[in-house]
Amino acid sequence: MINRKAEKLGRERSVIREIFEYGQKRKSEIGAEHVYDFSLGNPSVSPPPSVDREIVRLIEDGPSTSLHGYTSASGAPETRRAIAEYLTRTHGFSVSGDSIYVTVGAAAALTSALGALVTKGEEVIVLAPYFPEYKVFIEKSGGRAVEVPSCPDFQPNIEAIKEAITPRTAAIIVNSPNNPSGAVITRERLEQLASVLSSAEAELGKSIYLIADEPYRELVYDGAEVPFIPSIYRDTVVCYSFSKSLSLPGERIGYVLVSPSIPECDSVFAAVAGAARSLGYVCAPSLMQRILPKVLGEVSDIAVYDRNRRLLLSELSSYGFECVPPSGAFYLFLKSPVPDANEFAMRARDFELLLVPSDSFGCPGYVRISYCVETEEIKRALPAFSALAKSYGLKG
Amino acid sequence: MINRKAEKLGRERSVIREIFEYGQKRKSEIGAEHVYDFSLGNPSVSPPPSVDREIVRLIEDGPSTSLHGYTSASGAPETRRAIAEYLTRTHGFSVSGDSIYVTVGAAAALTSALGALVTKGEEVIVLAPYFPEYKVFIEKSGGRAVEVPSCPDFQPNIEAIKEAITPRTAAIIVNSPNNPSGAVITRERLEQLASVLSSAEAELGKSIYLIADEPYRELVYDGAEVPFIPSIYRDTVVCYSFSKSLSLPGERIGYVLVSPSIPECDSVFAAVAGAARSLGYVCAPSLMQRILPKVLGEVSDIAVYDRNRRLLLSELSSYGFECVPPSGAFYLFLKSPVPDANEFAMRARDFELLLVPSDSFGCPGYVRISYCVETEEIKRALPAFSALAKSYGLKG
Repeated sequence: MINRKAEKLGRERSVIREIFEYGQKRKSEIGAEHVYDFSLGNPSVSPPPSVDREIVRLIEDGPSTSLHGYTSASGAPETRRAIAEYLTRTHGFSVSGDSIYVTVGAAAALTSALGALVTKGEEVIVLAPYFPEYKVFIEKSGGRAVEVPSCPDFQPNIEAIKEAITPRTAAIIVNSPNNPSGAVITRERLEQLASVLSSAEAELGKSIYLIADEPYRELVYDGAEVPFIPSIYRDTVVCYSFSKSLSLPGERIGYVLVSPSIPECDSVFAAVAGAARSLGYVCAPSLMQRILPKVLGEVSDIAVYDRNRRLLLSELSSYGFECVPPSGAFYLFLKSPVPDANEFAMRARDFELLLVPSDSFGCPGYVRISYCVETEEIKRALPAFSALAKSYGLKG
Repeated sequence: MINRKAEKLGRERSVIREIFEYGQKRKSEIGAEHVYDFSLGNPSVSPPPSVDREIVRLIEDGPSTSLHGYTSASGAPETRRAIAEYLTRTHGFSVSGDSIYVTVGAAAALTSALGALVTKGEEVIVLAPYFPEYKVFIEKSGGRAVEVPSCPDFQPNIEAIKEAITPRTAAIIVNSPNNPSGAVITRERLEQLASVLSSAEAELGKSIYLIADEPYRELVYDGAEVPFIPSIYRDTVVCYSFSKSLSLPGERIGYVLVSPSIPECDSVFAAVAGAARSLGYVCAPSLMQRILPKVLGEVSDIAVYDRNRRLLLSELSSYGFECVPPSGAFYLFLKSPVPDANEFAMRARDFELLLVPSDSFGCPGYVRISYCVETEEIKRALPAFSALAKSYGLKG
């Protein structure tokens, strides 16, 4: 029998996808240069040159049977070791390759981690605004998402999290730098969060895992600090992707780090492996695994993102829009001048501006502006933003 | 809470893996050339040269943002179209790109297809001997595997399948060429199977899907025919992988073909997409997707597998062993001279021969010999096989 739940999930286009496809249609009607598409989070800068250079070098060195052959399910030993050494060196927190499970991107890292840490009927706390797929992944793991709104400054609301914890709480997902708000959680707030979680663990006599979803870790501005959470909270599992830092989102390569501080870390690691196995993950793409030891720590040139961020923030603020100043990722979160952000995003379309209303991120009243585009495209779009502002009686 | 089922799945090494690791240890003790490892199904021939050539060409052509960027979840349109055109051309069965969902290898194709076609509590028929992961994948989809032993010649037992069908039957998995037996199902037997399934559909008033798992499609010998099942049975979903045909199992690239003959094929396709989404598959590795249009239809040089097959079959038969003559894949299925194949495989270790007992394939009494190795390794191992035969009173 066709699984109707899966069918529904396959049919329901995500809001973001829908806007993107509207944009494609509109571009064919009036010309691509007249449509200002800020809907997708697709990196617009190239991977560091070493990525393609290393691929070619590996091919020239051969043999291609081992280059393209299976690795262990958890990853090639030298890749796992290189990631562990990089983390140890960068964060001063000792990790060995045994704690690293190489994955088919961050989404696979999340579904594997959730499959490992959630048992049917348990709850997973998500901090709104959040990446909409969290709900899909949590439900697939047998769990239930419990939304906790963030504070007005988009930092975690510690009191609200405390109240949301129940004996059924299995985990909390923390995403910093945040998609869609661009906020970076401060060290102080993370320490408060760790303290609340530790107390709850002691009180409930069970582990509450913190799943740190960190695909945007390296995309930060003005020297913002992204603290390494395993050194702050014991029971942390990090889900990482090289999609944004190395600009290769299509290649699907990332990892799960099971913190060695977790008392039952061997069991958690085995459960990650078991979950990945049952989801059909055999190994992460081998060629991408093999380039990693040579390119770890490199980051695509994010100067263009920073330039876009500054430009948008100053201009849109000057038009009278209220923005959340982003410290990381490549999203600007802008407050809708009317309560219904869907209405605002629809009116923006009249000005050929494609913005994503925030409802599907669990935080109504905002739009997300993806600024991983050419700076020229932003400059061309500014008059449209100004006219949109004026249409709401703002300065424009 | 740690999901103990996932943990168990992660801890329990597959039998094959265990033998492989024993082999690694043994090789370090007595030297690799003295251990005859026939445990793994890892292609030993190189990919066609066009694979690496096309990777380098794409890198030189750039731009690398689009080369390594996201594709649609279902795959790059030109890749889907190329696969469809190849299938139409090769099998005279008209398929469009809309029927192709590009996947992260065959395992992802299977978990996505099962997630699409199975609803909690339903049954999936598997024909023993079968790939052990089928059970893991079926269980994850909420279904239950129902084993049906094959005939002595390893063709499907049509009567037994007929009896195994119940109102809860959602699907049947057919794997030809077969891992582990090497058998290729004849056209006649497939037609009988189609007839039984169609009658059952009519009687039960529901669809019974045939999931054709075909990673070994191109690995056939003596001109054996591998019929294209969608042209024989209406409700067919093909799961394919390029792992063996192009010798790149680590790169994880394959596809699901949802036959356009299926009455609700749009719904099935949407359900495959929804299942893949909830399992954490975002898209198949983009670089591999992009080489496919240029290398479709090419096959690694399998002459070495055929040479190995002939050598093993004639020699082992001459020692007095009973073998299933394999027409495809790269496995020889050998009957254990004693009822317990585990005991036989353990004794083979005394002769430094690493063979996989067939119990985990749901068909006790045999061992699987993977002959995707250098022919020289087989030649070196022949005296050991002979001595093993003699130890059971065979000719040797």
